[in-house]
Amino acid sequence: MNIESYVVGKWHAGSEGGSELRDATNGELIGIASTAGIDFGEVLDYSRSVGSKKLRKMTFHERARALKALAMHLMEKKEDFYKVSAATGATRVDSWIDIEGGIGNLFTYSSIGRRQMPNEVYCLDGEPDTISRQGGFSAQHIWTPKRGCAVHINAFNFPVWGMLEKIAVNIVAGVACVVKPATVTSYLTEAVVKEIIASKILPEGAIQLLCGSANGILDHVNSQDVVTFTGSAHTAKMLKSHQNILDNNIPFNVEADSLNCSILGPDAAPGTADFDIFIKEVAREMTVKAGQKCTAIRRTIVPQDYVEDVQKALVKRLEKTTLGDPRLKDVRMGPLASKDQQEEVLAKIAELRKSCELIAGGHTGENLLEADADKGAFVAPTLLYCDSPFDKTDVHNVEAFGPVSTIMPYKSPEEAQELSHMGQGSLVSSIVTSDTTFAREMVLETASSHGRILILNESCAKESTGHGSPLPNLVHGGPGRAGGGEEMGGKRGIYHYMQRTALQGHPSMLTKVVNKFIPGAQRPESGIHPFRKNFGQLQVGDTYTTAKRTVTEADIVNFANISWDHFYAHTDTTSLDGTFFEGRVAHGYFVISAAAGLFVEPKKGPVLANYGLDELRFIKPVYVGATIGVQLTCKEKIDQEVKEDEIPRGVVKWQVDVTDETGETVALATILTLVAK
Amino acid sequence: MNIESYVVGKWHAGSEGGSELRDATNGELIGIASTAGIDFGEVLDYSRSVGSKKLRKMTFHERARALKALAMHLMEKKEDFYKVSAATGATRVDSWIDIEGGIGNLFTYSSIGRRQMPNEVYCLDGEPDTISRQGGFSAQHIWTPKRGCAVHINAFNFPVWGMLEKIAVNIVAGVACVVKPATVTSYLTEAVVKEIIASKILPEGAIQLLCGSANGILDHVNSQDVVTFTGSAHTAKMLKSHQNILDNNIPFNVEADSLNCSILGPDAAPGTADFDIFIKEVAREMTVKAGQKCTAIRRTIVPQDYVEDVQKALVKRLEKTTLGDPRLKDVRMGPLASKDQQEEVLAKIAELRKSCELIAGGHTGENLLEADADKGAFVAPTLLYCDSPFDKTDVHNVEAFGPVSTIMPYKSPEEAQELSHMGQGSLVSSIVTSDTTFAREMVLETASSHGRILILNESCAKESTGHGSPLPNLVHGGPGRAGGGEEMGGKRGIYHYMQRTALQGHPSMLTKVVNKFIPGAQRPESGIHPFRKNFGQLQVGDTYTTAKRTVTEADIVNFANISWDHFYAHTDTTSLDGTFFEGRVAHGYFVISAAAGLFVEPKKGPVLANYGLDELRFIKPVYVGATIGVQLTCKEKIDQEVKEDEIPRGVVKWQVDVTDETGETVALATILTLVAK
Repeated sequence: MNIESYVVGKWHAGSEGGSELRDATNGELIGIASTAGIDFGEVLDYSRSVGSKKLRKMTFHERARALKALAMHLMEKKEDFYKVSAATGATRVDSWIDIEGGIGNLFTYSSIGRRQMPNEVYCLDGEPDTISRQGGFSAQHIWTPKRGCAVHINAFNFPVWGMLEKIAVNIVAGVACVVKPATVTSYLTEAVVKEIIASKILPEGAIQLLCGSANGILDHVNSQDVVTFTGSAHTAKMLKSHQNILDNNIPFNVEADSLNCSILGPDAAPGTADFDIFIKEVAREMTVKAGQKCTAIRRTIVPQDYVEDVQKALVKRLEKTTLGDPRLKDVRMGPLASKDQQEEVLAKIAELRKSCELIAGGHTGENLLEADADKGAFVAPTLLYCDSPFDKTDVHNVEAFGPVSTIMPYKSPEEAQELSHMGQGSLVSSIVTSDTTFAREMVLETASSHGRILILNESCAKESTGHGSPLPNLVHGGPGRAGGGEEMGGKRGIYHYMQRTALQGHPSMLTKVVNKFIPGAQRPESGIHPFRKNFGQLQVGDTYTTAKRTVTEADIVNFANISWDHFYAHTDTTSLDGTFFEGRVAHGYFVISAAAGLFVEPKKGPVLANYGLDELRFIKPVYVGATIGVQLTCKEKIDQEVKEDEIPRGVVKWQVDVTDETGETVALATILTLVAK
Repeated sequence: MNIESYVVGKWHAGSEGGSELRDATNGELIGIASTAGIDFGEVLDYSRSVGSKKLRKMTFHERARALKALAMHLMEKKEDFYKVSAATGATRVDSWIDIEGGIGNLFTYSSIGRRQMPNEVYCLDGEPDTISRQGGFSAQHIWTPKRGCAVHINAFNFPVWGMLEKIAVNIVAGVACVVKPATVTSYLTEAVVKEIIASKILPEGAIQLLCGSANGILDHVNSQDVVTFTGSAHTAKMLKSHQNILDNNIPFNVEADSLNCSILGPDAAPGTADFDIFIKEVAREMTVKAGQKCTAIRRTIVPQDYVEDVQKALVKRLEKTTLGDPRLKDVRMGPLASKDQQEEVLAKIAELRKSCELIAGGHTGENLLEADADKGAFVAPTLLYCDSPFDKTDVHNVEAFGPVSTIMPYKSPEEAQELSHMGQGSLVSSIVTSDTTFAREMVLETASSHGRILILNESCAKESTGHGSPLPNLVHGGPGRAGGGEEMGGKRGIYHYMQRTALQGHPSMLTKVVNKFIPGAQRPESGIHPFRKNFGQLQVGDTYTTAKRTVTEADIVNFANISWDHFYAHTDTTSLDGTFFEGRVAHGYFVISAAAGLFVEPKKGPVLANYGLDELRFIKPVYVGATIGVQLTCKEKIDQEVKEDEIPRGVVKWQVDVTDETGETVALATILTLVAK
């Protein structure tokens, strides 16, 4: 009957005190969660000195592969989690978002780690900067993992997703974590962590779990740690004001519930497909997870003339929402997570009703399917109307964290924009419109208040992931009331657990330090042609200087003939007045092809293929009589993951400098090859 | 005698109270600074509703051009600023860093704004993400300016640079600012702002100035504002704990003085050039600006065996530092900024002496050149020695913000790393070594504690900008004690004043909203060839589908002949076993050249030149008999700044999709052209 914590390599059942956790539908006791006897300082030390240390020695690819294995393992166990999840009040659909949505984040971050990050323990940020005029002093920004741990303080509404969306990121970054789920639904998080630990896929110490109070843990964090919080703005404020957080400038990322809005465009009049899409989206956001989503639509902003139609359509739709035991197939909406939440939401509805008219709901539910209104934490879908949202501003400040939304009217696009901003910062806003001009204006005028904006209409509705769904590739967070933080966002999120450092020095030194060619570095001439070296033998900086080639008129004519590119500058010497060109100019593609002709080693060897080209720039026109030569330098080596039946190999990027007989650069490029190991 | 503030469009002399500002060398009264009578709420409202509103309507390029004009204007007035600057205790060299270094930041950010940002009021972040499998739902991140203002609370040591390094960034970002310099040297900031305002180059409201106390201003900021602070960790903590900052998640960037270190490598033994470079750098960082730099070397970490040599060499060098009136050519170091600072630094030296041995200095200076030790705020260069830095840890915690540094020994690279971390986060660390292995290890093991790392040695010393110099292209900031913030860093800094928002919708909608082609968007076939449209006529999305071309063996042979690229896969059909290729394959460069041959319009027209190519990828081998065709789409239009005698034009990026007869993509590229207006 004890919900356990996993700390310092062991499962731990709190010996005394603790919270009683109950089924949201029938109030039955699930277990008691207590952290009594746990030394939080020791937990964090363990995370830093065992977990992070091990993760830091793994490359991004190794960590990402572990995540994928973990995702696959958890998918096999998912039905166990669904069973536990029902006790939180979640229907099968709600649980799918939490469980499979959460596991999906592991898959996505595994893919990001393997495809977008290097097979290294650090990564680079941006391109090198040449600082000095002579080129002997340059800079390169680098990201390295913070040497602390991540402390995740999570919300009750997504016990699985809330954990997995965060740990996917810190693990790829190379930082261990301590997960503190909201106690009320921590039994579901515990069930998942039991499987994570049992699988032994992550290195020991990579994750610890605290079920029960973590009061005092913030006394022990330091500036190499990262604290994240998801939940109410009120708790966020309390935690981020902790003296240790302030004294030591400890990174503290807040994701707070916000008064998100959805705006119906003037073009989406009643009767249009977009109008129906809007109604469906608002109703869905109100009822999924019984509206207990930090991204739910709290403010429904509609053209004044459509208010009545919107009310009618929404009421009609909400009436169809069957409430009851979420384990039943016919039930569309379960109870809130606890009786405390029910009480809180009803109080907020009462507060909103002081300035808003009640359109539907406002009570604890009727005709519950196989559930007892007294025992369960039910709240009926509740729709309100605020007729004067510029004067009655509670609607922009009071958040009922349940199946509650308020309709309000606007008279002009400017009013809609102002209402959008009046939420004072939100996680997400949606705009339902097919009018591209209206959409562009709304986005540019309101984006500063929102972390995400969904433009929804008929063309994308079927494939849309919805107003309320944060996605691993997109930033999740928002300014002001939404906490001012950012999570996920693909690669962007990984950097929240890393330190960015500007490195300065001679390009040759920086090349050795970061293992990427920095312009201005020495280019040692390779004894043998670098195309004859395999992936392991190649060193960043290895250089080959080619023979040279004098470009003739015949070359240009022949190239026009074979490419069929008869652009006048290559073919018609009478049309050059007022152009950049002083005579018949060689095709840029001829210059880069001839460069390849000079540097390519024809004989079969470790270079498997030319696979692409980046940042090709034609710097100076090449005319008849110019003599070009190439310096080819190994710029970067990127290890590649291959399937079992494929040739083991890596990507090698080459810096290609094409110069003419004056020594001036005529073209620059980065060429990509696949090189066998 | 009143130092004035510039608020709400007017110069304002505080009517009562205020601080007496005095010359650092002779104690003479310069003036009185008071903000009495200023309504800070009104100042911020003016900034948002006048300054930011005007800046937001300008594009990045327009703002950047204004910065350049401003920089040129201030350069013309620089001698006036040098005169005022001497009163702060600054020598000509010190003032050069402050004044011309500061103006240099305006030039650099002007260049960044014009070259790295679009000629638009917003910019995009990263590449689009395709979210749905069918491709009808995508995402693109966008940056828009925050709709508030920047409040800069600056330090006393760089009254000009400290302002300009920050305002350069917020102005390019499109956000107005209120500058609050440290009162003690605010007369110099006032002198510069007088010129800024008089020049009328920036739009009204873009900058306001508060000389004197700004106590209470933080009551008025909101979550669309950004507050930055540079100064002591103590004041930083006080300000960031302000209730309004915490309650409303107001971005607050801290740049605090930190206990930066410089590490001498084991290879840089006494007698080597690198040893001499180290001595010179430490001595310079101790004496420039009388050591009043947040980046100064406070901790001098050296191999145990070299301690005595380092002490001797440093003492010898410091002895040559002439103290006195900074207006004199022979004076190498002036006084601290004020008597208060002198008192504070002497107290900190006394504190450090409890666990460290005094090697040199420790007093208020001897043999001052034309200065009176009683009237001036002098402190002699002070060198300390801590023999046991793992036990006596004051040296890692106590900061004397003056010409003070402490030597400490290390026995192994691991010890050097630990000492580096013991500063608990710093703005900058330097490593003096020519040993690339040592340098790489030190960087990877210590970067997480530092915002910048300089690797200094003989190869770059002459061109090095030095340990203590933040540069506009590099991030300036550091974790932990250094405040946990980031400033500048080229484009990176601009985003501190903008909101990042993830946009979701159908690719066609997103293309219209962000004005960049998003893959999956409709590609309307252009009635006339898009190469015949000028820059203004072209629309993002305009598409041309070409005729097709069957690739023959003759094409491949001819291409090998003209390019001289005889790579075996194109020329030798007996060597293909165990390769990716099933037969003679066309050169990738042939495929892209033939694609150009298909889409290029030969006749003279608005397309002036092919100027480069990005992200070319060869997706599928093209064999003899394959038939290729191209879809060419206008992907992005980038306005270009040209000189008066040049053809008005812009860059147009084209999405090039090369497909074969099966409809599969064989190559993808982004092609860059210059198109006349």
